[in-house]
Amino acid sequence: METYKKIILPEKEMPASWYNIQADMPNSCLPPLHPGTKKPIGPEDLSAIFPMELIKQEVSKERWIEIPEEVLDIYKIWRPSPVYRAHHLEKLLDTPAKIYYKYEGVSPAGSHKPNTAVPQAYYNMKEGIKRLTTETGAGQWGSALSFACQLFGIELEVYMVKVSYEQKPYRKLMMNTWGAKVFSSPTNKTQAGRKILAGDPDSPGSLGIAISEAVERAATIEGTNYSLGSVLNHVLMHQTIIGEEAIKQMQMTGDFPDIVIGCFGGGSNFGGISFPFLRLNFTEGKNIRCIAAEPASCPKLTKGDFRYDFGDTVGLTPLIPMYTLGHTFVPAPIHAGGLRYHGAGAIVSQLLKDKLIEAQAFHQLECFDAGVKFARTEGIIPAPESTHAIACAVKEALKAKEEGTPKTILFNLSGHGFFDMSSYEAYFSGNLVEHHLTEEELHADLKKLDTPLAV
Amino acid sequence: METYKKIILPEKEMPASWYNIQADMPNSCLPPLHPGTKKPIGPEDLSAIFPMELIKQEVSKERWIEIPEEVLDIYKIWRPSPVYRAHHLEKLLDTPAKIYYKYEGVSPAGSHKPNTAVPQAYYNMKEGIKRLTTETGAGQWGSALSFACQLFGIELEVYMVKVSYEQKPYRKLMMNTWGAKVFSSPTNKTQAGRKILAGDPDSPGSLGIAISEAVERAATIEGTNYSLGSVLNHVLMHQTIIGEEAIKQMQMTGDFPDIVIGCFGGGSNFGGISFPFLRLNFTEGKNIRCIAAEPASCPKLTKGDFRYDFGDTVGLTPLIPMYTLGHTFVPAPIHAGGLRYHGAGAIVSQLLKDKLIEAQAFHQLECFDAGVKFARTEGIIPAPESTHAIACAVKEALKAKEEGTPKTILFNLSGHGFFDMSSYEAYFSGNLVEHHLTEEELHADLKKLDTPLAV
Repeated sequence: METYKKIILPEKEMPASWYNIQADMPNSCLPPLHPGTKKPIGPEDLSAIFPMELIKQEVSKERWIEIPEEVLDIYKIWRPSPVYRAHHLEKLLDTPAKIYYKYEGVSPAGSHKPNTAVPQAYYNMKEGIKRLTTETGAGQWGSALSFACQLFGIELEVYMVKVSYEQKPYRKLMMNTWGAKVFSSPTNKTQAGRKILAGDPDSPGSLGIAISEAVERAATIEGTNYSLGSVLNHVLMHQTIIGEEAIKQMQMTGDFPDIVIGCFGGGSNFGGISFPFLRLNFTEGKNIRCIAAEPASCPKLTKGDFRYDFGDTVGLTPLIPMYTLGHTFVPAPIHAGGLRYHGAGAIVSQLLKDKLIEAQAFHQLECFDAGVKFARTEGIIPAPESTHAIACAVKEALKAKEEGTPKTILFNLSGHGFFDMSSYEAYFSGNLVEHHLTEEELHADLKKLDTPLAV
Repeated sequence: METYKKIILPEKEMPASWYNIQADMPNSCLPPLHPGTKKPIGPEDLSAIFPMELIKQEVSKERWIEIPEEVLDIYKIWRPSPVYRAHHLEKLLDTPAKIYYKYEGVSPAGSHKPNTAVPQAYYNMKEGIKRLTTETGAGQWGSALSFACQLFGIELEVYMVKVSYEQKPYRKLMMNTWGAKVFSSPTNKTQAGRKILAGDPDSPGSLGIAISEAVERAATIEGTNYSLGSVLNHVLMHQTIIGEEAIKQMQMTGDFPDIVIGCFGGGSNFGGISFPFLRLNFTEGKNIRCIAAEPASCPKLTKGDFRYDFGDTVGLTPLIPMYTLGHTFVPAPIHAGGLRYHGAGAIVSQLLKDKLIEAQAFHQLECFDAGVKFARTEGIIPAPESTHAIACAVKEALKAKEEGTPKTILFNLSGHGFFDMSSYEAYFSGNLVEHHLTEEELHADLKKLDTPLAV
């Protein structure tokens, strides 16, 4: 009668390598282009702000990249993370489907983000970098990098979108506790910030502006690099430890997933859980459905165009081949702040174009509804981002019930919701506003693009 | 080179019984007395608000009490909890001491409190109880009981001290997410609350008032019981799973603690980690020092009297033989809200009187200083309550350095600080007020007592 039992991977069986899906993709990603020349960029273009090891990983075709011993050491603070079977949620849904979830909220920062923050801080430290800069919106990424930098003795400057800085003081304090300096962006510290403030002294900031500030600081200060928490190939690769562990854990259960689900912002969460299962599709002839669950208010995968676009709002980053809503698209202020990004990383975009993965969009009301059902049956309060994966799992489990097929579903519960209780308040009080995008709103920013198409 | 390695107890070795220290104490606790007659109370006096199984456990002399299967099932959501060695903190302190810690923040409610919330909800459910009531101050206990009641389908009313209700909205929302009803106490729902409000409509509330409201509701509504999160014997016993696990984990390391430390409010945290080690002192002739770390602003163990006193401010509960500052003592508003209680439970008090345990008091500034050192070396942000145990471990580690003795220290890291970041803000901004109690303040409330002395 073990209904809440964890499936624990012994520490000695923790994967010692990340899986690089670029080794197995039927079609490689198109190269990133220089924002000025629109020619493919080389390593030297990135070396001003990234360490060489990460630049190498970004374009590597090696299937396995060894995880450094120092990174494994820190991973072991919380890894291997548990897999659970959601018996009580299954019962509530009265479904023949088996629902499993991998729980990444056990990390000290409370989400999957430290899986890449730790190696990024490590490689920068190894290459003599004394300071990193980054941006953060909702705060999960900034917290994770603060934690990682503190352990490797690296200074960190976090440019936090002003509106979040003011609304989420606890996330800022968490970063401070780990020694990071957090600035309300736009700041007076950068040209980019000063320019914005000159135009609008009361600017609420945006992720695009914060990226510009962090990149400018990294490019102009000696011994300083920049770090990003999603979208890029090496970032998604660091997250594959999630799925590689999950494969071993699912083998321990005697079940194996027919469907694997991750929520989708820039791709680090979805890529982390799904790429290792896609490996089995590619190399062992399996046919596992991998579903990216994105917010209906920011539907780049289900409604965007596949084409070259910038990673930031201002247009300073390389052009990436991506499913995008246009880099000037401003998503509605939904409560899953970590999913409010206009585009998808290059790998996920190529996989979707090649129909090797699926995407589904969910409205936030059904996500919170699924999240509260989950908290009340399984006992863990999920982050608003993670509720998108739960909503997708619920939908697939109910479909299995309708069809009478006993599917096995695995989703990634990427973080806990302890810093997001005000979002639950909005849900309970009936104040969650659902924004239904019109066709016009959807295409307005895409129409502005003059970047080359990918196809 | 494994410096952050967890010591993980395999699930199948999880203890199947709680340890009841009442079987081994050289001197038994004196009996609780009826608040009116001041005669020893019997089971029937408690049966109006507690289930019979918990009343039996309260006075049992059996050494081991079997943990029900249904409780073990839920424990396995997060148990066994990890033990870590704090290599990096040791290095920072440059101490020959080995510092280990048991981490209870991995529970869904973020502290050790679910260890007793789950069995309390279970036994009430088994005896047909449909509704529980409780009080909460800082919110850790209310959250834990909300979680437990939700899983057993029991309704829960939480009377939350008004000042906390207003200052800690996220804790309230956490309880709501788990389905509990949370009321700002004093309320209009009880005679006790109405009486207070008639006298002072703007009363900020107190733990004492909240207890009165919760007890009154339980005593007057059919099918409703009351639940307490510390102080009582059965509550501390449920927490012994912490120390019983830790003994097995320490045996896995090849080291064994000379010193065991827990922070001290009512005793559930300290009792949970230390009673099993005291078992080894009692039954195997070991000589492990067990230290309760209390706040200097609420120093019942180091400066209180040992005598009979009430568990609540209003004087409705039985009289308990305890180290107390007087039940009307109002501690300064320190940030470790969970430690602001005037007295110690009967067992801990008897052990201290018999010099079988030690107590030390710490000011909150040194506690936060130790907590931030810990977060920056070991990566986990501790609850303000838990920083008292860290401060004590740091003190003992520095003493070991001074004396050149390589002691092994184990402390209980009872919870994370994610809901307490505003306290860290007060610390970082230099706004933590240190309250130094005068001798007069210390004895004022004790002088008011007319209850029988214990000796």
